[in-house]
Amino acid sequence: MLTKTTRLNLVDQVIVQIESLIESGVWLVGTKIPAEPTLVVELNVSRNTLREGIRALCHAGVLTTKQGDGTYVSSGSTLGKAIQRRIQKSSILDTLEVRNALEQEAARLSAERRTEEDLVNIRLCQQECSSYTASRDIERYVVADLKLHQTIVESTGNQMLIELYAHITDSIQESISLSLRKRFTEELPQNEHSELVEAIAAQDTKEAVNNVQQFFERLKRDIEREYM
Amino acid sequence: MLTKTTRLNLVDQVIVQIESLIESGVWLVGTKIPAEPTLVVELNVSRNTLREGIRALCHAGVLTTKQGDGTYVSSGSTLGKAIQRRIQKSSILDTLEVRNALEQEAARLSAERRTEEDLVNIRLCQQECSSYTASRDIERYVVADLKLHQTIVESTGNQMLIELYAHITDSIQESISLSLRKRFTEELPQNEHSELVEAIAAQDTKEAVNNVQQFFERLKRDIEREYM
Repeated sequence: MLTKTTRLNLVDQVIVQIESLIESGVWLVGTKIPAEPTLVVELNVSRNTLREGIRALCHAGVLTTKQGDGTYVSSGSTLGKAIQRRIQKSSILDTLEVRNALEQEAARLSAERRTEEDLVNIRLCQQECSSYTASRDIERYVVADLKLHQTIVESTGNQMLIELYAHITDSIQESISLSLRKRFTEELPQNEHSELVEAIAAQDTKEAVNNVQQFFERLKRDIEREYM
Repeated sequence: MLTKTTRLNLVDQVIVQIESLIESGVWLVGTKIPAEPTLVVELNVSRNTLREGIRALCHAGVLTTKQGDGTYVSSGSTLGKAIQRRIQKSSILDTLEVRNALEQEAARLSAERRTEEDLVNIRLCQQECSSYTASRDIERYVVADLKLHQTIVESTGNQMLIELYAHITDSIQESISLSLRKRFTEELPQNEHSELVEAIAAQDTKEAVNNVQQFFERLKRDIEREYM
């Protein structure tokens, strides 16, 4: 199977050019990219080469074409889509173990590095959880719970860890929410996160890590009951 | 920017068909895929559609076209390439922290689940490391060291964890090898892995995790000295 070298290289060049426009922030996630005639001139390529590059990036989850509208930047990298595909082939328990690995390291690094501002944000999320416990609002509690964990991961400052955790959580959010909803049909938990948050506040890395591990063991038991 | 719906869908269909041939093991990683005329018939698509699908999969790192030879399956999923690209944008320390997260969870799960056969394999890798310490063979020691860690991760049986760890290690192997080589210019370590291996043998999860954390702190100090 022979492929014309020049053609392949031109498409690859278009892909690299578009990716660097996204990575450098010239094209922001969520915005529409310029129309085809503009891009043909700006990137100095033929319409066919441009279209093929765009389709490859759509496949990779970086761009999304909306019929009759235009093409949008849907992700800053190919990682989200690749993880989503990989998770579709994995068991929920395998995926949870990977997420737990990231979350434990995040708890350790958060306890080490969190700023006072991070701590304020974490405590705000914690208060939000408590208020939904008080009002017995399961749907909002589930969202606030996810936001609290994400905020802790973000306080590590490790962008790769933050992205991996977010992509994995996105892909299994439904299963987690379902299991939380089932567990809390009768009563929502009181101060479920206080030990974790206090460990991070006290910069006690060991206690923070242990706490995440305990969370995980509980979630794993719930999920096993659900899916096994 | 209007794209013909039918064309886009056909290319996407080709991509999905090829991916499922790879995932189901009909096309094995490392093997050459059938020639273009065969595939045009088998997948029932035009040559142009086929070529575009193949190019998208080349971009995603799943296929590789060798000029004048043919197209080979280079990976079972898009994950490896996506991680490689993400790591190129990350600092080595951020990447090491993510790898450490996976390796600690792997040590815990290995201590929990390793079979007697796993333990035999892990001990064989350990002996290999020791023999290269004795013969002062740094190059081979570095390879055997990586293989030992990989073998421990494999004994967890969590395929997603195994793949993520392997992809991340692949991408930073050079930096790690360089730092190991610099640390061991004078003398190679004696029994560096014995505590970790004995913890896994005794199924002592806490000790196994602590040991990986200590490894990591040492590696981090080496890398910081190197790159900061």
